[in-house]
Amino acid sequence: MILDEIPHPIVLAPLAGGPSTPGLAAAVSEAGGLGCLAAGYLAPDAFRARLRETRALTGAPIGVNLFAYGRPEVDEAALRRFLERLRPEAERHGVGLGEARFDDDALDEKLAILADEPVAVVSFTFGPPPPGAIAALRDRGSEVWVTVTSVPEARSARDAGADALVLQGAEAGGHRGAWEDRDGEEDLGLLALLRLVAREVELPLVAAGGIGDGAGVAAVLAAGAAAAQVGTAFLRAPEAGTTPAHADALATEAPTAITRAFSGRRARGLVNRFLLDHGPHAPAAYPHVRHATAPLRAEARRAGDPDGFNLWAGQAHRLAEARPAGEIVASLARDARAAIAGTAARLGGAGTRRGGE
Amino acid sequence: MILDEIPHPIVLAPLAGGPSTPGLAAAVSEAGGLGCLAAGYLAPDAFRARLRETRALTGAPIGVNLFAYGRPEVDEAALRRFLERLRPEAERHGVGLGEARFDDDALDEKLAILADEPVAVVSFTFGPPPPGAIAALRDRGSEVWVTVTSVPEARSARDAGADALVLQGAEAGGHRGAWEDRDGEEDLGLLALLRLVAREVELPLVAAGGIGDGAGVAAVLAAGAAAAQVGTAFLRAPEAGTTPAHADALATEAPTAITRAFSGRRARGLVNRFLLDHGPHAPAAYPHVRHATAPLRAEARRAGDPDGFNLWAGQAHRLAEARPAGEIVASLARDARAAIAGTAARLGGAGTRRGGE
Repeated sequence: MILDEIPHPIVLAPLAGGPSTPGLAAAVSEAGGLGCLAAGYLAPDAFRARLRETRALTGAPIGVNLFAYGRPEVDEAALRRFLERLRPEAERHGVGLGEARFDDDALDEKLAILADEPVAVVSFTFGPPPPGAIAALRDRGSEVWVTVTSVPEARSARDAGADALVLQGAEAGGHRGAWEDRDGEEDLGLLALLRLVAREVELPLVAAGGIGDGAGVAAVLAAGAAAAQVGTAFLRAPEAGTTPAHADALATEAPTAITRAFSGRRARGLVNRFLLDHGPHAPAAYPHVRHATAPLRAEARRAGDPDGFNLWAGQAHRLAEARPAGEIVASLARDARAAIAGTAARLGGAGTRRGGE
Repeated sequence: MILDEIPHPIVLAPLAGGPSTPGLAAAVSEAGGLGCLAAGYLAPDAFRARLRETRALTGAPIGVNLFAYGRPEVDEAALRRFLERLRPEAERHGVGLGEARFDDDALDEKLAILADEPVAVVSFTFGPPPPGAIAALRDRGSEVWVTVTSVPEARSARDAGADALVLQGAEAGGHRGAWEDRDGEEDLGLLALLRLVAREVELPLVAAGGIGDGAGVAAVLAAGAAAAQVGTAFLRAPEAGTTPAHADALATEAPTAITRAFSGRRARGLVNRFLLDHGPHAPAAYPHVRHATAPLRAEARRAGDPDGFNLWAGQAHRLAEARPAGEIVASLARDARAAIAGTAARLGGAGTRRGGE
């Protein structure tokens, strides 16, 4: 397993949609973690270019994250109502709405690119790899990781042949990785998810969600994770492509919430005006709503208006520091080791805290 | 601090409303954790009797948990509509509804009992102790712990003079300890809450929510908690007063959800018919709704119908084992130490996993 080979048990979360850059992925891998490049949302050519750029920046192992979702059953009437709701806002900002259409994120083309130019790890979000993909990626020397949010998904991913599971707790920023985008699903906190999966799935588990510092890394390692996947904590790094208004908002005490407002799929972001206004009305329609809101969100980003676009953030976003990604990796690793060593000392090894049982 | 004196960093959650018994609290304290007796819901005389019974069972330190909530602003029309909704169900089961009234859980009387018969720890849920209570309890030798669910609550509890904070993560079973019972509040996962509070509050932190085994205990200790507070993991112990239908349901894979259906206040329980039918309609009106549903819930308990009453459960409920509480404490402590020692060995002390940096 790649996790046995890299110096630090720290994985960069994919961070699709802006923050992911070759520079960020390379910096994390160079520092001894596992950098990850998000393929999601990119056109295949753009993905290939970024992959090559990352490769030019580091010879260390990297991962690539792909989206693997099916076509949702969309309530067309609800979608139309939502678009009507957004239209005045789009007009106010002098932009139109995007076309509320389905696409499959060019998954097959991206898999073909990864067959040509393999990487150490290919991770999947929103569902299991398509039939045959696991074997094909393995043939090219890639490990296949699958993101799960529940015990049944973990079992299915194991049965499909995943090499490792990324367990995404409810604390995580960005889209929920749940394979079915349903309302009323239980969003399991990371620690509960990790222990429930660990008791019956023997694969290496990569823990994600709300891990913002070395003590958080230590916690998931102590709970049995092979590594911590960290996203929000890198969003303020200079190598990240995070919009300044987003990076600034992360440093506030703004609460987060899970919403469909921006994309039509449940995702956690900082609570802002757009989320409050539109979240309660947004239907389950991904990626339709994402395409529809794209011009509005782009305009808000351009204007630096943090109330008008998606400010994806995990619940521990206040822990994110504006420093180089390599320093963040080093400090996560150092502080995690110190937290474990301190706890071991306090518990007095195999004895009780009073010394021996 | 009491947590420096007891052998194991394990605290019994209060478990008011049935599961809490003198036998359970005493068994946890006898095994080297900190047993806790729930005073909530009990009449003062019954509380005093249970306190004495616990004292007769153990000479080890124990804690007592009190409810400290204010009178909510109730939407009377919404409350009336909800009662009308429940009435046919009550009639079907041959019981009436209880009186939807406010009461303050006899907080002052219980504080007076604790002044007469002090315990090592008095913890508060739903709000800070009333004015003067912290000083009075300290005069009698008790530590005062305050349950919080957010950073602002943690700051307020510290400023009020709490000796320690109980941090309740979103994973926790039973009532949310939030001081204000509002919709739309962010429910922070335990790990995020713990790290966000630890960075600015220097008090000992007791971590609660979704901790169901020794590795979970290890995780929160590694994340900086002074102890783990564990509730659901004790609900199937023979010393607990858990209704058999509830204990059985905990062993299933049923999901949990947060609902106001049973009490009018947000609480996490296993998803059942009552929760699904009434949860979406229940107003914020605690303890009014609790009193109103009491006869219905009692009848469902009597009939052994798990679809008719509140099955409080944390998200890791499947980890709960049907074994004596003392064995649970011993195994949590042993497995936590093993998890920390194993993680320390894996991380190779101060070096990297490749050995030295």
